[in-house]
Order: sequence, then C-alpha cells, then structure tokens
Amino acid sequence: MSRRARIHYPPLRDKVTDAGTAAAHIQDGTNLFISGFTSGYPKLVPRELVRRAQAGEEFKVNLFAGASTGESVDGILAEAGVVAWRRPYMSDRTMRRLINDNQIRFKDDHLSMLSGQVRAGNWGPVDVAIVEAVAITEDGNLIPTMSVGNTPTYVKKADKIIIEITHEPEELYGLHDIFIPEDPPYRMPIPIYRAADRIGKPHIDMDPSRVVAILFSEEEDCCAVFTPPDQAARRIAEHILDFVRHEISKKRLPASLPWQSGVGDVANAVLSGFLEDDFYHNLDIYSEVLQDSVLDLIDMGTVRVASGSAMTLSYKGRQRFFNELYRYKDKIVLRPVEISNSPEVIRRLGVIAINTAIEVDIYGHVNSTHVMGSQLMNGIGGSGDFLRNGALTFIVTPSTAKGDRISAIVPMVSHVDHNEHSVDIIVTEHGLVDTRPLTPRQVAEQVITTCAHPDYREMLWEYYQRAIHANGGHEPHDLSEVFAMHQRFLRTGSMRKDC
Amino acid sequence: MSRRARIHYPPLRDKVTDAGTAAAHIQDGTNLFISGFTSGYPKLVPRELVRRAQAGEEFKVNLFAGASTGESVDGILAEAGVVAWRRPYMSDRTMRRLINDNQIRFKDDHLSMLSGQVRAGNWGPVDVAIVEAVAITEDGNLIPTMSVGNTPTYVKKADKIIIEITHEPEELYGLHDIFIPEDPPYRMPIPIYRAADRIGKPHIDMDPSRVVAILFSEEEDCCAVFTPPDQAARRIAEHILDFVRHEISKKRLPASLPWQSGVGDVANAVLSGFLEDDFYHNLDIYSEVLQDSVLDLIDMGTVRVASGSAMTLSYKGRQRFFNELYRYKDKIVLRPVEISNSPEVIRRLGVIAINTAIEVDIYGHVNSTHVMGSQLMNGIGGSGDFLRNGALTFIVTPSTAKGDRISAIVPMVSHVDHNEHSVDIIVTEHGLVDTRPLTPRQVAEQVITTCAHPDYREMLWEYYQRAIHANGGHEPHDLSEVFAMHQRFLRTGSMRKDC
Repeated sequence: MSRRARIHYPPLRDKVTDAGTAAAHIQDGTNLFISGFTSGYPKLVPRELVRRAQAGEEFKVNLFAGASTGESVDGILAEAGVVAWRRPYMSDRTMRRLINDNQIRFKDDHLSMLSGQVRAGNWGPVDVAIVEAVAITEDGNLIPTMSVGNTPTYVKKADKIIIEITHEPEELYGLHDIFIPEDPPYRMPIPIYRAADRIGKPHIDMDPSRVVAILFSEEEDCCAVFTPPDQAARRIAEHILDFVRHEISKKRLPASLPWQSGVGDVANAVLSGFLEDDFYHNLDIYSEVLQDSVLDLIDMGTVRVASGSAMTLSYKGRQRFFNELYRYKDKIVLRPVEISNSPEVIRRLGVIAINTAIEVDIYGHVNSTHVMGSQLMNGIGGSGDFLRNGALTFIVTPSTAKGDRISAIVPMVSHVDHNEHSVDIIVTEHGLVDTRPLTPRQVAEQVITTCAHPDYREMLWEYYQRAIHANGGHEPHDLSEVFAMHQRFLRTGSMRKDC
Repeated sequence: MSRRARIHYPPLRDKVTDAGTAAAHIQDGTNLFISGFTSGYPKLVPRELVRRAQAGEEFKVNLFAGASTGESVDGILAEAGVVAWRRPYMSDRTMRRLINDNQIRFKDDHLSMLSGQVRAGNWGPVDVAIVEAVAITEDGNLIPTMSVGNTPTYVKKADKIIIEITHEPEELYGLHDIFIPEDPPYRMPIPIYRAADRIGKPHIDMDPSRVVAILFSEEEDCCAVFTPPDQAARRIAEHILDFVRHEISKKRLPASLPWQSGVGDVANAVLSGFLEDDFYHNLDIYSEVLQDSVLDLIDMGTVRVASGSAMTLSYKGRQRFFNELYRYKDKIVLRPVEISNSPEVIRRLGVIAINTAIEVDIYGHVNSTHVMGSQLMNGIGGSGDFLRNGALTFIVTPSTAKGDRISAIVPMVSHVDHNEHSVDIIVTEHGLVDTRPLTPRQVAEQVITTCAHPDYREMLWEYYQRAIHANGGHEPHDLSEVFAMHQRFLRTGSMRKDC
C-alpha cells in the first residue's frame, strides 16, 4: 500500500513535500517543538537543518522536545551548532558537552510540568512543531509512533506543523490514550483511578489547516541496547523485591500498588526479578518509559497492564512488539507525559517508585543530575515526579563508580534534586535502609554501615563523627570538609585517600 | 450553662475526671498523639505530665502533633525531659535545643503526608490521643477548636482518647470541614474544585467507647503577637504584588488563582498589601495557617473565602472572631492538614504560593530548615507541599539577617529543602528574579545583581566567576570554597570579609 494512503484526510495529501521545503519554515530564532521521548522523534527535518548549517547558513533554533531524542536529533543538531536553547531532559553526549560549556542554553524541568507551561505561554510561541506519526486519520488528526511525550500540546499550540510519516505499522492506532488536562483555575481531576484506565482519544487532535509539510520517512528510532544486569544491579533488585515482599506479607503495604521504574540496568534487573519470583503477579506498571522487559512480563502474565509515555525497545523487541501488536495493545497504554508523570495520579494510585542516583548522601539527599556539583549529566526527567509523589520510593545506586574510585555515598551530595523527604528507601548492592522511622543521625549511621562500599565506610564514619563534634545539630555537618571526597576526586582522580 | 452540657452525648458524661486520672493512661513508651496546629492543642494533660516528671517519675513519650504547639506544650514537655520522639514541625526553643543536642529524636515530614502515614501504621500504634474540643455532639462526635491538623486521623486510630473541652464558643460548630481521604490503592480524587468547597462533615467522627477521660479546660491558646511589617517585608510584598499584577494584566496568569502565604512578617505584609491595592479583589485563600490579616481582608471584601487548617489569632483577633462568628463562618473553612496542604488540590486549584527561606543560593535552591547546614530551626512544615505544587511559587527572604552579618543569598545553601525546580520567583527587599525562562547561570547573575544585599554582591560575583573558571559546567561551583561564607560566619560571627 502506498504510504500516501496513510493520509486518510485527502486535503492534506497536497502537503507532501521534500525535507528542504519543509525545513524552510525553520529559520534563525524559530521556537522548534519536536515529538520524541526516547523514541518517536522526527529524523528528516533535523538532518536537513544540519545540511543547511554545513552549507554555511547561520541560524539557531530554540529546541523543545518531550525528553531525550538521541544522537540522531540532539546529537547532530548540537554538533552543527544550530541549537540556542534546549529544554528539557536530554542524554546526548555532544549536547551535554555544549550545555556544560554554556554554548547551548539549557533549562531543566520536571517532565510532568512542561506541557502546562507551554500552554500557559511561558516558553513563548510554538512557531513550528515537527511530529513523527504513523498516519493521519480521516478527520485530519494524528496517530503518533512509539512515544507521546508533549506532542499533543505542541500540536495544539503550533502555528505550523510538519509531519514525518513513518513505515511503522499503522495498527499502532489504539495504543495511545491522548488526554490534555485542563489548566488552572477551575479544573477537574484527571480521571485515572487504575493504571489501565483510558480517558482520552486514540489520536492527537490537530487543526489540519496548520500543517505546512508532510514527509515520508524510512528512518527508525535508534534501537535501545540492553546488556544483562550486572551483579550489583541484581543484588539491588533482590534487596528491593525482598523488602516489598516482606512489607506486603506483614500487611504494611497493599499488594496491589502499581510500579514505576526508571530506565537502565537496575530497572531492568528489578523487572527481571519479577519473572523469577512467584510472589509477584498481576502487577500494574504506571511508569514513564517502557522497555523490552515489559513485553516479557506481559507474556508471562506477571504484568496485567503497563502504562507509560514511551516505548524504548531493542531491535528484537520492536519486531516482537509489531508482530503481536493486536495482543500487546490490550495491555499497554501510552499517554502524554503530563499524565504518565502526573503528581495527582501517581499519588492517587500509590505508585512504588524506583529511581537511580548519581550520588546519595548520608542523610538521604539525592543528586540525579550534576556530576561533582557542576556538570550536567542528563536532567531530572521524571524522577522528581515519582519520588515526591509515590507511596513508597526507592533511590538506588551501585555503591561506587569508576572502578571504585568514586563512592556514590558521600557526606553531602554536590547537587540536590530530591531531598531527604522524598526518599523512603536507599539501596545499594550492599544493602537497604528504610529511612522512614529514623532520625537523620540514625539514617547516617545505617547508610554508612549498610549501603556504603566497605572501602569508604571508615572515611564516611570519621567524617560523621567529626561533624558531630564540630557542630552537632539535627543533621551534623562540618562545612569545612563536607566536600573533601569530591575535591580529592577532582584533584587525584579518586575519592580514596591512598591515591 | 454548665460546661457539662457541652457533652451532648450523655453516656460520656461519666468520663469527666481530673487531669491526674486522665494522664494515668500515659506511661513510659506511650505513643502520644495530640491535637494542635499553632493553636487548638491540649493544655491540661501535658501540664500534668510535667508535674509527674517533676515529682520524680521517670518516663518518656513519643509525641506526635499536627504541627507546632508552642511553649505551653512542646516547651514544658521538652524541659521536663519526657519526650523521646517528636514529629513533625515544632517551633519551641527548648525543644529545638534538645533536638539539636540529639536528646529528643525528631523526624521532619511534609505536613501533607503525616496522616496517611499514621493510617498506614508507619508510626506504630496510636496509643493515646489527646484532643481539644469545644463540644461532643449528640452522636458522640467531636467539634474541634481553632485547628484541625491531623486530629481526625489521630482520633480515628487511637486506642484511648482524652478530650479537653474548652470554653471557646460552641458555635465554632460549622467552621470545620472534616474529610479523611481514602488510602491507596483504589482511591478517588479529593473532590475540592474551588477553595471554598466543603466536602466533609462539621465534626470529627469518634468512637465514644474509646474515650477514657474528659476534662474541662479554662486555658487558652498562647495568643499570636504581631508586629507591623518592617521596611524589608513591605518592599518584598510590593515586589510580589507588582509582579502578579503585571502578569495578570499581560494575560499570562489567570486573575482568579487562590493564594497561599506562609506565617510571619512577609506573609502579613503581602496580605496587608492587598488591602491598599484596588487591583486585588474577590480573592480566594487556600493556605495552611490563617492569621488576623485574613479577618481584615474578609471585612474589606477583598477576600471572599479563606481555607486553612488552623487559625492563629492575636488576643484582639480572637475576640473579634468570636464576636462575629456567624459572619466569619461563611467565609472561613478549617480542614485537615492533609487536605489544606494536599498536593493534588494545590495543583488542581493552581495556588500562588509564597513561602519564606533561611537562605537561598545563587541557583535558586532553598534552605528552609537548617541554620548553617546542621542546626534545625523549626521544620519544613507545608512549604514543600505548596512550593512543589503551586502554579506560581515565590520564595521570599530579607537579603540579610543578624544586622547584615549573614547574607541570605549564598553560593550554595547548606541544606536543601526545595530545589531550583520548585522555585519560580526569588524575592528580597532589593528585587525579584523570575527564574522560569532562565538557565542556572542566568539565574545566578540576576540573583546576585538583583536580590543580594549590595554589600555581598561583589563577594558572590567573584565566587561565581571563580567557579566558572575552576569547573565550568551547567551550574558552576567550586567545591573548595562553596561554603566559605558560612565558614567565615562560624569562625568570626559574620559573613563579611572585614570582620
């Protein structure tokens, strides 16, 4: 079937054009809002912008996405020097370097909050939206690809819309649940009461008169690459699963709370752990990014429904998902990120949230974003949405990094993204501390003796004792040496004293 | 009329007794949950506990309240040495000293979250609840006094209930709106859609069979003392009112968002500012603690309704309120703190939130709780509930403290309660910075040049420049001297270099 047939709204067929014509709508100073949230980002127009820059044209755009868009968008645009501003979360290394060099301006935001800010006009006009889609419906609306992110709001507010229609199956129709919440004041609740509830439309509402160009794309998302979880990730997963099982069996936790898990090794290890554990069954997932492991859990019957804003699958995972779409569509819902990450919904459902950290301090404050306090890693993403609102919140990290030269447990984190009040449980491969019934001093004692890597326990304990003697207080610190471990790393390449 | 007539449920009249008999239910190790949230705390039984301690009895209780209870409860119990644990927010200086000395164990919590934790059993059994009330209804339920706080949950879960019936007017009946939300999973929205909505009962449900003692109290809450706002507070209020007026007139902010304001000088100055400003009218207040200024605003017609969890009035304010109760009751609603501070409701309504800080750093992170990083001041209170969920959030502080020897703007705060993502606008008497469209570096530049006290601007600017050159990055810091100002204060008693 001709790709043109995917434009089920005939008047828009005249808008089919080439990337050069489409990209001509983007000029110096354009506010450019793109679809994409780890997947589902446009590929052709960004490449054309790079071509123009390489041909000597001088221009910069303000680039807004759903979240990370990978090397094929963020990477090449950053490299080409055409990005003035970027919001929010990104994970490309070139873009990261330029943000840290202050050559690209970056503002981090809780992912739940962006769409509302755009609707309120806080980011300025939405000059152009570029969205990836599998089809345009008979009524001129959009069916997105493998992510939703902020696309519904970007499309709603855009002056001009450019669409890249991919070859992914049109049968993705029905996977998405598109609901734009009201804005204050006078708004009603978001009517999700179970993780699986569908409250919106299967398409993104669009005003076809604003569509200025349609392209056909043969490109694919960069496939996620998964490595089997290492020993530390498996140990962390075991600690979490054992703890939750224990809480449920003691009737301190309902058995039916939905789960959220960040992206990465530990997240995958936890989800893999479910597969090997008869205790867990009929689980709901209310999360942000869904990965291959979710397909396994659905196939095994361990998970009955998974809700998120995006799917990031391996190459094999994509084939598997597309081949049995009819079956997975009953079990998976993709929503706008302001709904997948909605504080209201997360709190109502009572989500068990598992998120990773760069470093955690002895009192339970968490750094998720800035290495050694200054250098942005990726951004806060949805971690704040889930940690601040979940019913039971885990922060997880291997106890060390860089071949044990960095301790992930430190006296004071060099940047705070989540404070002690957002973190219930701290977990490393060495153990788990439930901070809820503890004073800060008790937290420090247990985190040092249970979570820290054995090589760093004495160093941390000595700091803690010196802080008590120097200043005492409810959360003792000695500000004169609170970052001594960080400074040693910056000076010698290791937090260890013997280096 | 005899006070006994306030027990409209006759079987409970047999429970009237003396403080000694009532307090006998409290022994070493008792988990003691009391009413009170700046007002409305029990006075007789705490005094009896002190008497027993002074007579040589050795015992300690775990003390849980709504929030601060003043010198007449927290103060005397701390002084008597009978408190093992205290949760959450307190503001008494003796208790503060003992918490910082680690003689009283203290765990701080977002005030919105306590009741749910108690219902989940995370704090252990509710052995005894002591609640202040104006009456017991015909059905054996409770009418509280001037605060609600966590009392509905404490009464619901208590094994034993002790009631102190005060002489405050029984006509407080109808002021309160008591609604205990469901717990996860399977819970429905909290059905408040306007600040004034009443969704619950005018009394606290109580199982009369658990009442073990009733006392009649002639005591009164320690009256709040208000001083007229100083010049700095008035300037801060002007900045806020000008900014919001400007945003509304530019159509960037709806005119009808409800307001929240913390307790204290600046809060009062803002509310006083409304009185002198024709622009503001028909306001809703959706806040935590309501003070005298709210009565003025209602009388002037500037405020049409005020919702909170407690009223803290001056002596004159109390007389005025009691004298015209019939009129104020239509305009004021007191709710459980998990409702007044509900993240779900605050977010839905789009509250404009104004909260104070101990210190703010150049990138917009906020310390609300720990002086010089270690010493607890009062606690986080509701500031996190409102800052993280409000539609427009202000953090306010005079630019200096202690006769300009402390700068409230610092390179890095020594404790983070609210990070950069929870703070939209930073205000001191010198000016206001809207951080929303700015990168961290832009925030730093504007905060230093606009908000900092002129005497500290050069010092802060030099730090910022050295941090850029030392480490660069998205949020440049030089960890080797990031707390130099704090250390100088600890060493010399001033952050100034010339001391």
